[in-house]
Amino acid sequence: MGIELSTLGRHVLIEFYGCPSEVIENNSMIERFMNEAAEYSGATIVESVFHHFNPYGVSGAVIIEESHLTIHTWPEYGFASVDVYTCGDSVNPWKAADYLSEKLHATKTESFEIPRGMADKIRQFAEQEIDQIKVKIELEGVK
Amino acid sequence: MGIELSTLGRHVLIEFYGCPSEVIENNSMIERFMNEAAEYSGATIVESVFHHFNPYGVSGAVIIEESHLTIHTWPEYGFASVDVYTCGDSVNPWKAADYLSEKLHATKTESFEIPRGMADKIRQFAEQEIDQIKVKIELEGVK
Repeated sequence: MGIELSTLGRHVLIEFYGCPSEVIENNSMIERFMNEAAEYSGATIVESVFHHFNPYGVSGAVIIEESHLTIHTWPEYGFASVDVYTCGDSVNPWKAADYLSEKLHATKTESFEIPRGMADKIRQFAEQEIDQIKVKIELEGVK
Repeated sequence: MGIELSTLGRHVLIEFYGCPSEVIENNSMIERFMNEAAEYSGATIVESVFHHFNPYGVSGAVIIEESHLTIHTWPEYGFASVDVYTCGDSVNPWKAADYLSEKLHATKTESFEIPRGMADKIRQFAEQEIDQIKVKIELEGVK
């Protein structure tokens, strides 16, 4: 019935500096890269929403069954800021991060991972008794 | 023409423990709270996407002109994990955080802020010469 988790989620924050503006000003390509990154990491895409700024730059989120990916780009500064938040053990957020690193051609990338939803704290502060903390399985069928 | 920024964005990460399940299992209420939090912080909402899990829990993002808010809830564990990422100086991410704190009735809240898009690094690693780093103003009219 699933392996007990020490944290529900893994959140990777990535700053891409020195990206060629022809890459990060291409809004439809950025949306495609984000969706491909999600798929490459093993995630199941639920929805993808992107806002194209006038005159340039994009803000977007890919909601995945395992949480989300977001991006904000500033082509005028060669900068893109990405988050990959995944839950469970079937998806590796670093695969999405690596995929985007390859595509965005940054001269410098900074990234780190923050655990989200630590099981010990969830148990400590819960109002109810909690037994094992496990990966959420989405059920098929009528809600 | 705008004040020079030391960072493009401010990213607040919040973990809400011990939330009453009747609050965080109410998917439509969570979506409303997230949109209200965005408005309360002074943000302009672009789009709101929420995925309701079967049997319970919600994952969602509110894309704002100033970046994004996301949430993931685990009613079975009384846990909700929130991000508020804002750009520029017209929106205060902590106002959204405080609004959600009030609404989610957590027994314990942990939060911290991470600067995103630090101007000095953007300038250091850019391929082009960058003068002042300023708030992005969205232009009206045809792209």
